[in-house]
Amino acid sequence: MRNEALADWLERLGSAAPTPGGGAAAALAAATGAALVEMVVNLTVGKSAYVEHEPHVQPIGEQARALRERALELASADEAAFDRVMAAYGLPRESDEEKAARSAAIQAATAEAARPPLEIAEVAARVIELAAALPGRSNRNVFSDVGVAAALAGAALESAAINVEVNLGALKDEGVRDGLRKELAAYLGAGDLGREVVGNVRQGLGS
Amino acid sequence: MRNEALADWLERLGSAAPTPGGGAAAALAAATGAALVEMVVNLTVGKSAYVEHEPHVQPIGEQARALRERALELASADEAAFDRVMAAYGLPRESDEEKAARSAAIQAATAEAARPPLEIAEVAARVIELAAALPGRSNRNVFSDVGVAAALAGAALESAAINVEVNLGALKDEGVRDGLRKELAAYLGAGDLGREVVGNVRQGLGS
Repeated sequence: MRNEALADWLERLGSAAPTPGGGAAAALAAATGAALVEMVVNLTVGKSAYVEHEPHVQPIGEQARALRERALELASADEAAFDRVMAAYGLPRESDEEKAARSAAIQAATAEAARPPLEIAEVAARVIELAAALPGRSNRNVFSDVGVAAALAGAALESAAINVEVNLGALKDEGVRDGLRKELAAYLGAGDLGREVVGNVRQGLGS
Repeated sequence: MRNEALADWLERLGSAAPTPGGGAAAALAAATGAALVEMVVNLTVGKSAYVEHEPHVQPIGEQARALRERALELASADEAAFDRVMAAYGLPRESDEEKAARSAAIQAATAEAARPPLEIAEVAARVIELAAALPGRSNRNVFSDVGVAAALAGAALESAAINVEVNLGALKDEGVRDGLRKELAAYLGAGDLGREVVGNVRQGLGS
């Protein structure tokens, strides 16, 4: 994905090929939001008007850069996990033992497949928090980009949640399901913060 | 942008370079949402279980494909329009005539720069409408991707609106401003539909 031309990747996303799918799309939105946070920081640091905010803003840019890289890794991890689920569904199911082994393999692969979107949700939540820490301290000329970063990271969070939930629906073990649901809930709180940032930016632009 | 490696484009987005910025990021989110609509259609058409829905679903895929292409064109148009605004700001401003000419050039370029994000908002609104027409008629195995498509297109709409509004703030002519604001308002209504689709998908997954 990293080295693929943008139009080619979108073409593959739109095709009937099993991957990439919604998980990778969520990861790309998180990476795009993270890149916009970096851009705002890069247009703030080194400007005399914002020199007092540099100690606050510089680490935000470094964290955003790391999150952007992580999001791209998670897009690949999501594809690999999905392929393993598909492989489990393809196991033989003639004898009772085969049926039991296949069912166990599907359950294990599905629980594993919930992890990449869960981490994409975490990355998106952190991008929202970074965007929320910028207004008032970052270059006013790119104030609108803070709002775009929050909007895209918010959609990434929501999309990742959808991808966790689709895996939860296929899991039989209530304990595993509840554990994953609780982890997800911890990240979903950032959704409100993201909407607040978008609202504040639009209000600040006088919409 | 089309032929650039994904990671390179994100690197450039995150840099201090004047373009790409939030407008192109919004266009990419709209293109990603459109591609997911296409994917859902491509995994529905030709399947015997959905044969009755083919006449409904096939045109949705064709329209989504055209919108994906249009979104990528608009990303380039947005960059070009932004460069023209920057060029206008760079005009000489020593004599009174120069000042007046520069100010007029800035106003004209800024009004023009509102058009690509306005069209990105239109594309995003149409992607949302296409996604909303899928549930109940498309492959149930990729139901979650309908929700991701709507979430990403919703963020694209919001991001495009932010980019229109930042240009409105720099426009002095109230008539031009009101005209652009009205055009934008016509697309913003799709935001509620997008949130409804996301909510219905998450409810359908049993979140």
